[in-house]
Amino acid sequence: MWTDTIQKPTLMLNEAICRQNIQRMAEKAQQNNVRFRPHFKTHQSAEIGQWFREVGVEAITVSSVDMALYFADHGWDDITIAFTVNPRQIEAINALASRVQLGLIVGSIDTIRILQEKLTNPVNLWLDVDTGYHRTGIDWEAESAILVLVDQIQTSATTKLRGLLTHAGHTYKLNNHTEIEQTHQLTTARLNHVRDSLAESGFSELQLSLGDTPSCSVVEHFGTIDEIRPGNFVFYDVMQHYIGSCDLEDIAVAVACPVVAKHPHLNQIVVYGGGVHLSKDQVIDPQGRTSFGRVALPDENGWQITDETNYVKGLSQEHGLIHADDALLKAIQIGGILLILPIHSCYTANLLKEYTTLHGKKISMAMIPAID
Amino acid sequence: MWTDTIQKPTLMLNEAICRQNIQRMAEKAQQNNVRFRPHFKTHQSAEIGQWFREVGVEAITVSSVDMALYFADHGWDDITIAFTVNPRQIEAINALASRVQLGLIVGSIDTIRILQEKLTNPVNLWLDVDTGYHRTGIDWEAESAILVLVDQIQTSATTKLRGLLTHAGHTYKLNNHTEIEQTHQLTTARLNHVRDSLAESGFSELQLSLGDTPSCSVVEHFGTIDEIRPGNFVFYDVMQHYIGSCDLEDIAVAVACPVVAKHPHLNQIVVYGGGVHLSKDQVIDPQGRTSFGRVALPDENGWQITDETNYVKGLSQEHGLIHADDALLKAIQIGGILLILPIHSCYTANLLKEYTTLHGKKISMAMIPAID
Repeated sequence: MWTDTIQKPTLMLNEAICRQNIQRMAEKAQQNNVRFRPHFKTHQSAEIGQWFREVGVEAITVSSVDMALYFADHGWDDITIAFTVNPRQIEAINALASRVQLGLIVGSIDTIRILQEKLTNPVNLWLDVDTGYHRTGIDWEAESAILVLVDQIQTSATTKLRGLLTHAGHTYKLNNHTEIEQTHQLTTARLNHVRDSLAESGFSELQLSLGDTPSCSVVEHFGTIDEIRPGNFVFYDVMQHYIGSCDLEDIAVAVACPVVAKHPHLNQIVVYGGGVHLSKDQVIDPQGRTSFGRVALPDENGWQITDETNYVKGLSQEHGLIHADDALLKAIQIGGILLILPIHSCYTANLLKEYTTLHGKKISMAMIPAID
Repeated sequence: MWTDTIQKPTLMLNEAICRQNIQRMAEKAQQNNVRFRPHFKTHQSAEIGQWFREVGVEAITVSSVDMALYFADHGWDDITIAFTVNPRQIEAINALASRVQLGLIVGSIDTIRILQEKLTNPVNLWLDVDTGYHRTGIDWEAESAILVLVDQIQTSATTKLRGLLTHAGHTYKLNNHTEIEQTHQLTTARLNHVRDSLAESGFSELQLSLGDTPSCSVVEHFGTIDEIRPGNFVFYDVMQHYIGSCDLEDIAVAVACPVVAKHPHLNQIVVYGGGVHLSKDQVIDPQGRTSFGRVALPDENGWQITDETNYVKGLSQEHGLIHADDALLKAIQIGGILLILPIHSCYTANLLKEYTTLHGKKISMAMIPAID
């Protein structure tokens, strides 16, 4: 059994499911004739990046300058950093722009001016449009302010406006296909409104880019969108399942955790696997419980997801506290292995820094330096 | 200004506050004549460990076998792993037990038997007693079951029973000194009950060990307790402040984050500093808001905490979304630095893996291998 060698919390990757998720999204992009620029922040791995190359992907999205440097070092030469420009990293941005076709996103006149003053190589700019999520970007209705930004971008040869970009992160609050579809339609309509209005002012051929996993998973027809940037779909997770983006069987990662205690009178199992392994991200599940993960049992081919009664009800730094029904309590002993399907796979992968396939192959991740 | 060199989210450490926190707890332990066995899971740093040596600490607590190995490599020879024994790491446990005085905690007959079968060197055992937190350990009222465990421990020369250990983690749900004090009294009474009952059965000289930061911070007199194991107090954090364990001014760490966007119409500031830097741990603050951190402005000597109106209201992977009052919006520009006081410093430190003092000194942490 593949669990025999597990000594501590280990991020297991079902390569077949992962490749299927990649293949499915690539096909959908192709059918819609949109550029597939997957977000690599979820897997952060050069090797998994290769699986995208195999389905024809040539351009990627990342969420930090460090991640862009890592993937540039691994042969990617068309990279968008989908995080508002941080002026304090201008040196690294200049170094990147000298090596790859670099895309940056901007939402304010201050940032554009700083870039125009300090860039030593041309970059592609995407205007970050707030279509309703209210995290970053310029309000889609702020017509004159948008025009000011676009005018400013045109004043320098180093900043080339490529298009309008948005992140409809509010789809993460939804839990059914109809609402996700409606949000996508509204998002697209708002981006089109901005594009049309800029075209009237003489700025034409702007592309539209969006990319949340719920929309890209649920929506079949992307309409006027030119580029999609989903990331999480590569693994999916319990949160995406509850949103409606995927089936539980589409989740490609699970953390194998040694069982260290059983308390039948409390219907509890304790595993070695806590907040430093899974992250403290949480959802309110359909039963109204705060959940830190779903529970699976290992089998020869991977894992079998157990009844929804079983869930991770609490996490300490190293402990996972599982509410367990009688069947699960009977099925597992101290020293055995349980698997936890993460609530949010991006965070879990970021914490564990390495994948182990069911065939025992180790796949490394970027060790993004938190340090200088 | 010390902020000039900050390019990305950076974990700042105010060494003076940290040393004061250490000093204060060491003095309290000394006055109470209890052994101070600080938990090193919060700082995970050999260098900060030295600051404890300077106040006379000789014995430590850790939460994993890897952490025990790291500190053993840095000269610590009396280490308790305050995490239920994971039988799958028996080889590493044996290696440790051959080098240091190793303490382990157990709460089940199965685990004790596995240890007795596989240990190659003697260890100190602490019986994990559940005094009300209901995470791990044997119920303090389960008199006959406790006796069975203690009897079993006596059957081997490799397992030496040292005492009764508990973690009153339910103090984390409290928010005033009276309740924390009451919980501590109850916890102590329950441990005493178990000790007295075992003494009647002929098992005497058992020590009592407890260690949550709220109790150790608030309680002045530890009564019959022999050993305390607090960890978080070394830095404290916003959660501990709301619990009542510390003043905001006792918090020794803050994450310096570059400001990347300002949205005055939404009373929002966006910083580079997200869930992969701060962790997704959260509290409901006294105003009923879900908070991911408090906000401070840098000054020459460190940071000035801003009004409670300002707080981190959301975290994405790399983004921190700050609700900002007009004063804060005026005080800071894109490209500036804000500081975020973490909700839970253990997780933030674990993510950022390095400290920078206000004098610019880098202090490294254990790079606990998530990987084999």
